[in-house]
Amino acid sequence: MAAAAAAAARAEGPPLPGPPGGRPRPVCSRPYFLVLMVFAHLYVLNVLGLLLFVHLSAGEPGGPPPAAAPPPPPARALPRLEGIKVGHTQRVELVPGRAHAVRTLSLKPLLFEIPDFLTEEECKLIVHLAQLKGLQKSQILPTDDYEEAMEMIEISQMDIFNLLDHNQDGQLQLKEVLTHTRLGNGRWMTPENIREMYTAVKADPDGNGVLSLEEFKQLNIHDFHKYMGSQKVKMSDLVRNSQHTWLYQGEGAHQVMRAIRQRVMRLTRLPPEIVEHSEPLQVVRYDQGGHYHAHMDSGPVFPETACSHTKLVANESAPFETSCRYVTVLFYLNNVTGGGETVFPIADNRTYEEMSLIQNDIDLRDTRKNCDKGNLRVKPQQGTAVFWYNYLSDGEGWVGELDDFALHGGCLVTQGTKWIANNWINVDPNRRRQLQFEQEMARYAGAEAGAPGEWTVDKAYSGVHVEL
Amino acid sequence: MAAAAAAAARAEGPPLPGPPGGRPRPVCSRPYFLVLMVFAHLYVLNVLGLLLFVHLSAGEPGGPPPAAAPPPPPARALPRLEGIKVGHTQRVELVPGRAHAVRTLSLKPLLFEIPDFLTEEECKLIVHLAQLKGLQKSQILPTDDYEEAMEMIEISQMDIFNLLDHNQDGQLQLKEVLTHTRLGNGRWMTPENIREMYTAVKADPDGNGVLSLEEFKQLNIHDFHKYMGSQKVKMSDLVRNSQHTWLYQGEGAHQVMRAIRQRVMRLTRLPPEIVEHSEPLQVVRYDQGGHYHAHMDSGPVFPETACSHTKLVANESAPFETSCRYVTVLFYLNNVTGGGETVFPIADNRTYEEMSLIQNDIDLRDTRKNCDKGNLRVKPQQGTAVFWYNYLSDGEGWVGELDDFALHGGCLVTQGTKWIANNWINVDPNRRRQLQFEQEMARYAGAEAGAPGEWTVDKAYSGVHVEL
Repeated sequence: MAAAAAAAARAEGPPLPGPPGGRPRPVCSRPYFLVLMVFAHLYVLNVLGLLLFVHLSAGEPGGPPPAAAPPPPPARALPRLEGIKVGHTQRVELVPGRAHAVRTLSLKPLLFEIPDFLTEEECKLIVHLAQLKGLQKSQILPTDDYEEAMEMIEISQMDIFNLLDHNQDGQLQLKEVLTHTRLGNGRWMTPENIREMYTAVKADPDGNGVLSLEEFKQLNIHDFHKYMGSQKVKMSDLVRNSQHTWLYQGEGAHQVMRAIRQRVMRLTRLPPEIVEHSEPLQVVRYDQGGHYHAHMDSGPVFPETACSHTKLVANESAPFETSCRYVTVLFYLNNVTGGGETVFPIADNRTYEEMSLIQNDIDLRDTRKNCDKGNLRVKPQQGTAVFWYNYLSDGEGWVGELDDFALHGGCLVTQGTKWIANNWINVDPNRRRQLQFEQEMARYAGAEAGAPGEWTVDKAYSGVHVEL
Repeated sequence: MAAAAAAAARAEGPPLPGPPGGRPRPVCSRPYFLVLMVFAHLYVLNVLGLLLFVHLSAGEPGGPPPAAAPPPPPARALPRLEGIKVGHTQRVELVPGRAHAVRTLSLKPLLFEIPDFLTEEECKLIVHLAQLKGLQKSQILPTDDYEEAMEMIEISQMDIFNLLDHNQDGQLQLKEVLTHTRLGNGRWMTPENIREMYTAVKADPDGNGVLSLEEFKQLNIHDFHKYMGSQKVKMSDLVRNSQHTWLYQGEGAHQVMRAIRQRVMRLTRLPPEIVEHSEPLQVVRYDQGGHYHAHMDSGPVFPETACSHTKLVANESAPFETSCRYVTVLFYLNNVTGGGETVFPIADNRTYEEMSLIQNDIDLRDTRKNCDKGNLRVKPQQGTAVFWYNYLSDGEGWVGELDDFALHGGCLVTQGTKWIANNWINVDPNRRRQLQFEQEMARYAGAEAGAPGEWTVDKAYSGVHVEL
């Protein structure tokens, strides 16, 4: 996403000198109305908004801050476990009188494994509670609801080309099209899918898998639309093929659910007021054939990005929103007969380059095909927890930038069923907003004294359960 | 060294089941006296002592601690800068009222660059003071002073073979011989040197660059000795080809030397009592053709390892000793016309494997040949400082294990002269011994009130200035 923003900034900013030896950047002075299903997605709106924001807010280096900001809230640091090095094991007392081993699996992201975090009985109970509550599909088959959004966009075909042309070489490589996963409209696009589409709409007459500017200009958008609409999409073609439900962990919840929350608190050492006001437990079931292609649990944060959990109390209108999941704690609730590992394709890679995720038609994010090529795989083991930080430190004891290396996915379940649960701990990278949120939550809890505290959680999370 | 210890443990421990599919380990029941110049080096004594130690101290996992230890000293944590991620820049006030940029160059090791740490005038003054004091060769040409040590060793040729046979495949690959740099007796051994030596002593009749057990057994040690003795060794054939001197920075020292020590304190945030009792400033001059092959500034620490700076006051007899340089701060004192970069060959590598440093005859540690293949190079820039941690954290606010990724060297100076200086901050990984050392130092300083404090430093470092 950061790379996308950078690409967007390149595409939309003031005319830049081209790269050495590169072609001059085409300038399109007549934006025209595009009836273009695929690109007229809300995602494009987001990206355009983002690049506009990046453009507008790019001040002089070392210049003064944009406006007089209110004084910062009193310092309160978020503890962060030390990884030391891969393989390092520390002992943590999660249950009184008992030491659990916390082993470092990677430093990028900062990732740990804790065997026997849950007992077998606890695992079974969680599965049981989830079944009682009922699970629903994590992602539904795509529908054609983009027309409205499309009507609102003014964007030139040239701008779209520039947006996709990550390396600005005047051609669209397959990987440049693939990294914009939203183009698939919820469907996971493989290199083969893109080639088939090119063939069907005659986008790539020379068949070299690369779209030149000329080829792109001559692309008939209606053909593309028709082709995509005609495609039969199965659940296994989606980004995520699973079912899930949410289990309440707040005051008055089942004692096992409470105990797990307490244990997560002891493990992460994060303040109770933060953990208690985080999302409920998400329980996920992957049937045989299920998967979740590699993704980030949370999004990048710019000064104007709102967090889902604090936006209601912050009462700000922000152009972007993300879930601000500082920490992910993932529990394996059963032993899976075949497959179903959690993969971190680029854990501890020396460098991060979005485009290097796809090489020679091999998309490392594809957990149906390429889990074996990822850097790190965790095999499900009943009762084991893994936990990692989705954000770096800001160097001052608070949440910093998104950690791109936290990319992860659920590998194809080749045999049996896989049950996991996720506890996310939500922290607003904006210290002030997090504090304000906690104060409001405490106030609500006080006002509702007598009634169980579920309402506060429901209120805070009414808008959170969107597909990530 | 850790890998060497592991190899040693394999070679010397009780009979182990061989690796799956591996050959049975030969057992040599008759250790015999070896008149073997090369292997009868003190290094072998060290390694054997180490493996014996590792063997003896390998308790049951989770077993009780070996003996009743006195209670730990009061907790006092060593601050450690956060790297956040490569490219991250933090501002630190090193000089009142002025912010210096501290940029993260790598996380493994945790390495930072600080432009303009020294002014041009300060750099010139340091060079001037060093010239006034006079520099001496950092390493002298090897002499034949090993006979004595040799007389003391009882080690079988089979044990030596096992010690060198890192992967225990029953053959000595070139890289297995090369990683034991001490075999060269101060001379840097290249793959070509080893091949030439094999040819000269007819060690490898089939000329495949690999010594089988049979070939090794038939090796005539006297031939080897004679060959090595007959080799003309030049300064450029050594591990280190430079000159250096030490400049006092304690109380009463030149105000610039004091100011630099204060600045190092502010940069590292380490306690004054630790920084003040660390080594003096080492000033190094590399002439054209100078280099320093990749090395570690400090050694691994086992429970029985003594630190050079604390061993006098700790009054313990320890089988191993190292300099316990927790932090290295390296200053560039001039702009070098050609070459002379500082290389970190494996910085931020995903994994560390000692043997992978040498691949296909390319030794990444060789800074005369292969600097361009290292992961990270810092170009000398007058006034810039780089600083890194040679040890990991122990997770409890103190010095932990040696960080293998801190391997670094000085690339060949192709044109002109290169001047640098090193400030090492010595911390004993044993908290108690460090505290005891500081208390003793404070006592000495009190006793010597009136006289300048140089004596304490001299005393503490009387044995430190050995070649590393």
